[in-house]
Amino acid sequence: MTDLIAQLTLAPLVASVIGLALAGFFYFRVKSLPEGTDTMNLIGRYIREGAMAFLVREYKVLAVYAVGVFILLYLAFQGHGTGLLAGGCFLLGAFLSLFAGFVGMKAATYANVRTSQAAREGSKPRALLTALDGGAVMGLSVAATALLGLGGLYWLFAGDDHLGTVLHSFAVGASSIALFARIGGGIYTKAADVGSDIAGKVVEGIPEDDPRNPGGIADNVGDNVGDVAGMGADIYESLVAAIVASMAIALTAKEEYIRGLFTAVPAGTDPVFLAVTLPIFIAGLGLAVSIVSIFIARMLRQGRPATVLRAALVGPSFIIFGVSFVAMPMLGVSQAVTYAIGAGAIGGALIGLVTEWYTAWSPIESVAEANKTGAGTGIISGLAVGMESTVVSLLIVAGAGFLANLAMPEGMGLYGIAMSAVGMLAGTAVVMTVDAYGPISDNAGGISEMSELGPEVRAITDELDAVGNTTAAIGKGFAIGSATLTVLSLFSAFVLEVNHARVVEGLAPMVLKLDEAPILIGLLLGACLPYAVGASTMKAVGKAAQAIIDEIIRQFNEIPGLREGKAEPQGTVIVDIATKAALSQMVLPGTVAIVAPVTVGFVLGPAALAGLLAGAVAVGASLSLFMANAGGAWDNAKKFIEGGGIDGHPKGSDAHKAAVIGDTVGDPFKDTSGPGVAILIKVMSVVSLLVAPLIATLH
Amino acid sequence: MTDLIAQLTLAPLVASVIGLALAGFFYFRVKSLPEGTDTMNLIGRYIREGAMAFLVREYKVLAVYAVGVFILLYLAFQGHGTGLLAGGCFLLGAFLSLFAGFVGMKAATYANVRTSQAAREGSKPRALLTALDGGAVMGLSVAATALLGLGGLYWLFAGDDHLGTVLHSFAVGASSIALFARIGGGIYTKAADVGSDIAGKVVEGIPEDDPRNPGGIADNVGDNVGDVAGMGADIYESLVAAIVASMAIALTAKEEYIRGLFTAVPAGTDPVFLAVTLPIFIAGLGLAVSIVSIFIARMLRQGRPATVLRAALVGPSFIIFGVSFVAMPMLGVSQAVTYAIGAGAIGGALIGLVTEWYTAWSPIESVAEANKTGAGTGIISGLAVGMESTVVSLLIVAGAGFLANLAMPEGMGLYGIAMSAVGMLAGTAVVMTVDAYGPISDNAGGISEMSELGPEVRAITDELDAVGNTTAAIGKGFAIGSATLTVLSLFSAFVLEVNHARVVEGLAPMVLKLDEAPILIGLLLGACLPYAVGASTMKAVGKAAQAIIDEIIRQFNEIPGLREGKAEPQGTVIVDIATKAALSQMVLPGTVAIVAPVTVGFVLGPAALAGLLAGAVAVGASLSLFMANAGGAWDNAKKFIEGGGIDGHPKGSDAHKAAVIGDTVGDPFKDTSGPGVAILIKVMSVVSLLVAPLIATLH
Repeated sequence: MTDLIAQLTLAPLVASVIGLALAGFFYFRVKSLPEGTDTMNLIGRYIREGAMAFLVREYKVLAVYAVGVFILLYLAFQGHGTGLLAGGCFLLGAFLSLFAGFVGMKAATYANVRTSQAAREGSKPRALLTALDGGAVMGLSVAATALLGLGGLYWLFAGDDHLGTVLHSFAVGASSIALFARIGGGIYTKAADVGSDIAGKVVEGIPEDDPRNPGGIADNVGDNVGDVAGMGADIYESLVAAIVASMAIALTAKEEYIRGLFTAVPAGTDPVFLAVTLPIFIAGLGLAVSIVSIFIARMLRQGRPATVLRAALVGPSFIIFGVSFVAMPMLGVSQAVTYAIGAGAIGGALIGLVTEWYTAWSPIESVAEANKTGAGTGIISGLAVGMESTVVSLLIVAGAGFLANLAMPEGMGLYGIAMSAVGMLAGTAVVMTVDAYGPISDNAGGISEMSELGPEVRAITDELDAVGNTTAAIGKGFAIGSATLTVLSLFSAFVLEVNHARVVEGLAPMVLKLDEAPILIGLLLGACLPYAVGASTMKAVGKAAQAIIDEIIRQFNEIPGLREGKAEPQGTVIVDIATKAALSQMVLPGTVAIVAPVTVGFVLGPAALAGLLAGAVAVGASLSLFMANAGGAWDNAKKFIEGGGIDGHPKGSDAHKAAVIGDTVGDPFKDTSGPGVAILIKVMSVVSLLVAPLIATLH
Repeated sequence: MTDLIAQLTLAPLVASVIGLALAGFFYFRVKSLPEGTDTMNLIGRYIREGAMAFLVREYKVLAVYAVGVFILLYLAFQGHGTGLLAGGCFLLGAFLSLFAGFVGMKAATYANVRTSQAAREGSKPRALLTALDGGAVMGLSVAATALLGLGGLYWLFAGDDHLGTVLHSFAVGASSIALFARIGGGIYTKAADVGSDIAGKVVEGIPEDDPRNPGGIADNVGDNVGDVAGMGADIYESLVAAIVASMAIALTAKEEYIRGLFTAVPAGTDPVFLAVTLPIFIAGLGLAVSIVSIFIARMLRQGRPATVLRAALVGPSFIIFGVSFVAMPMLGVSQAVTYAIGAGAIGGALIGLVTEWYTAWSPIESVAEANKTGAGTGIISGLAVGMESTVVSLLIVAGAGFLANLAMPEGMGLYGIAMSAVGMLAGTAVVMTVDAYGPISDNAGGISEMSELGPEVRAITDELDAVGNTTAAIGKGFAIGSATLTVLSLFSAFVLEVNHARVVEGLAPMVLKLDEAPILIGLLLGACLPYAVGASTMKAVGKAAQAIIDEIIRQFNEIPGLREGKAEPQGTVIVDIATKAALSQMVLPGTVAIVAPVTVGFVLGPAALAGLLAGAVAVGASLSLFMANAGGAWDNAKKFIEGGGIDGHPKGSDAHKAAVIGDTVGDPFKDTSGPGVAILIKVMSVVSLLVAPLIATLH
């Protein structure tokens, strides 16, 4: 490792250590804040205990899974002499993800009740700050552990023959956890939400977050395990996968092409290794920019929360573009790389804003209006909005990829696309901070309501919560957009890896002719998989919600005095039902994502697997955007009506009831199936990349 | 043209002439049947006049479009010396589609009231026969005109250098009409259905098909323009496209590969031409088998309608397989072709049965059950069913393609896939007959209700209508499955055509490497388009339905005595609103389908266009299956509840009201957007095939 490369690798490691230290600082700062009344304290504890209990049980399931995969990897790679290495890196990638999720979620469950307390003391800026600090623990942990793990491994294995296996195994570890955390958490949160909403509002006629509703705790737990822990694991894996894909592309690209990336290769430096190091260096820069952005957002806490948080999401993209513009010439790197990074970073911000437009502005007013003639027309309208937003978002992703490709010198177009994904994800720490802010303030609202803190407290938490809804939509747009670009990069890396392995074995490289039958058939098979995961997750939520509804009805019928508010609901029973349902239902979709590419790769060969991935990307990216945005539109249309947006149709009117139905449909759409499908395509691509050397010479 | 080829070409022409003669016979037979009471007669006339008025106005719009395309084609192909030929064949393909649609729909509008009359006379078998004969006019016209047109052109141009342009232009004519007829008809029928249902049931509290509902006529007109004329044009184009794709593949394949198709090439026969002729010959055989099947179904009219019609749909597939098994050895053709045809034919039947399972059996019971806890859970459940059925259907399509490819000798895999599409569509005449039977018996039910004919009449029409619902679902499965295989074939034909043109110009053939940036970006762009058409058609239905609801409310408020049944509703005003809305809203999605591939082809080149098509196929095939089947599940879940399927939740209960909401969402899903997306991918592929020689040398 030359000096320059060592410095470039050290930078993200330093940023990570600072990031982790700050995460620790925010963690203890939040924990030290006052908790409020005994009731608040108790509810907060119930939520925290429920969430941690879920996580612990989930981790037990994952431990079994991890051991199984470790053994499989060991056996599969032992022939290449890298059995322990592959298995160990897999475990490290998985462990760091679990660690970030654990710490981040725990912080969130401290922050929720303290945000509520700050609101109770009447201070909106302090409430905002508390929620933001709580989110920052997750945001910083996610980005810092990802960079620490990847950077550390790179530091140790740069130049080693097995670097590819090391990085890919780490990424598979990250992906596996993300898959199960996202799907399990998604099923939990929406089963609890839909179940307690329907039982509480429709069957028993009790408002949301009413203290008598036995599902209230589970609903709030769900926000933490789904939108904090699940989302964190998801974003962690995106960042890891984007970096690994670009490193893998650079590792297997032709050196003559790589030279085109540099205006002047620094003396004594291997241009290939410089190109391999750039992605992690850029991600490190992004983390540094994110840390600064988080502090700026904290300083601006007196401003309108919506403005502050939108700026925190969108601003870093432009700063990263600027920083790269200054840094690249200093390294002798062509500004083409900056343009690729910028296309991704600014494309990500654009997708975020487009998502906000479709899920918070005039389109949702039209959805709200359509509810005046009933839930049927309301849902039709939301579906149309979801589809339209999908078109625009995908056009932006395609545009970013197109520009990144165009900017690059000959032969490096795919590296450009991969770097644009890194650019889109460089601001991960701040994006995830704002993402986690959402469920924290949602929880704060729930705790205020369940503790009966009164309307002026609720007014503050409601405003923070409403902003959280919008930022969640933006964050989701970022996540799916970056997932799409990342998957395209992983796909390219997979093909390069297969061909690299073939050439080493003295075989001709595989030519993936799109017009050959195996690829076309693979395309159709790939198109199935997102629907398979969509179907199983929708079903899982439906089933689990039904079980929760039945239990809530049972409690109201059997617990004397519950309806009158004189007896306590048995919230932990619901928490238990949701936990069991989520853990058992996550197995099938999770297994499909891992087994499908491996089976197709070994049985039908690498070409059919490439077709499968292409079909899965096209279908998965569009389907997940569609589901996420349609769900967001219904959710916010309901909130728009609740806010009095439609004259003569207030909360409780028929139009509002219709909108509630749309929201119910949207819940699993946007928070379970949509994200589940997005992660499916990432996991499949990462797994394919890992097994590429093993299947390269088959068929 | 050698004797053998002439005979093989003559066979489908003879079958077509017989088919057309029989269509004429059924037309006049239906027309000569008794019409019933004056009220029935009047309502029948209103429906017929409304439907014909829509068709005439639609045809005027299409005439302008056709002239425009004629001029464009003339200009584009004039440089190749085929301007008039391309334009002329385009007009012929379009005209024959319009002709079949016109005749078939007119027959359906005679058959509806006469089916109702047969039911009034108490004879279920005669009612079944009348609806079936009415449908047979459409079924036979569609298949016979397609074969007559294609066969005639092939007779004239076989061996001519311009055969490709002739066939492709004819197919573009067929596709364009199908696109507008399907989308325009789909918007009409569902706007009228949703609009009059919501206004009638929800706003005014009047049952479906109530004579006081001003939307009743438009609703029944919609069945004809959407499910008869639109479906007919769609199936006509599928048959044309499948035949043209296989002919085009054979025309551009290498002769050495083609020889592998034959066990013994008949003396004096060019094997290439024999391979080119086979698809149309098989389609001719299919028409003959269909004619026989229609007569068998007529003979079995005393049986259970459900059994008779299911046998009519599924049986011909097996007969076609058997006939091919006998015929191919006689022509010296390898049984590999029979296996490919059989994979398609039997795969089509399987998809039909799977679709029936998901939209008529236990899955819809679970959807119905889910409605007990409200429309939200009901809709979630239907979405899951739609997704699951998509997975199974696509697996069957992929399996059929896989087997067809596997059966073929080296280099002819894509020809095999194309022939499997031809096999799936060979039974078009009988499939379309049963398809058109559905809306005819639906109309018969509507006329009986509006004429207040009493419950015993309604019992007969209700049974026929319920069967029609199931057969419609099966037919839709066939249509989308065959569309997917057809599009894969068209895609292959497009690539071969581009490369053929490049080789003629002395250029190297294009190698479509799936892992190159332009193709990956094309894939994302292609993924957008189905959502664009989905969004615009959903929006169109929502908007037009709203206008209809407003007008119905106006009529109830302003026409004195309407509510009491003492005054006549102004049904023609609603017909007019629906007509205008459908015609104006069909333009945008229709234009996208044609402009997108042409623009990408000319601006980004043939490789990006290939990527675009691949993305559009993967996304379009799955999305259209999902929408069609989810819609079918909601529709039949509602009917299941209405039939007393859920104890304690009869018609009118909360669960039923929830199911009605699902049905409303499903209406545009299954009858507008789903089919619209399926036809989008066919049109894009056909248009690409046509322009292939013009863009082959760009980029």
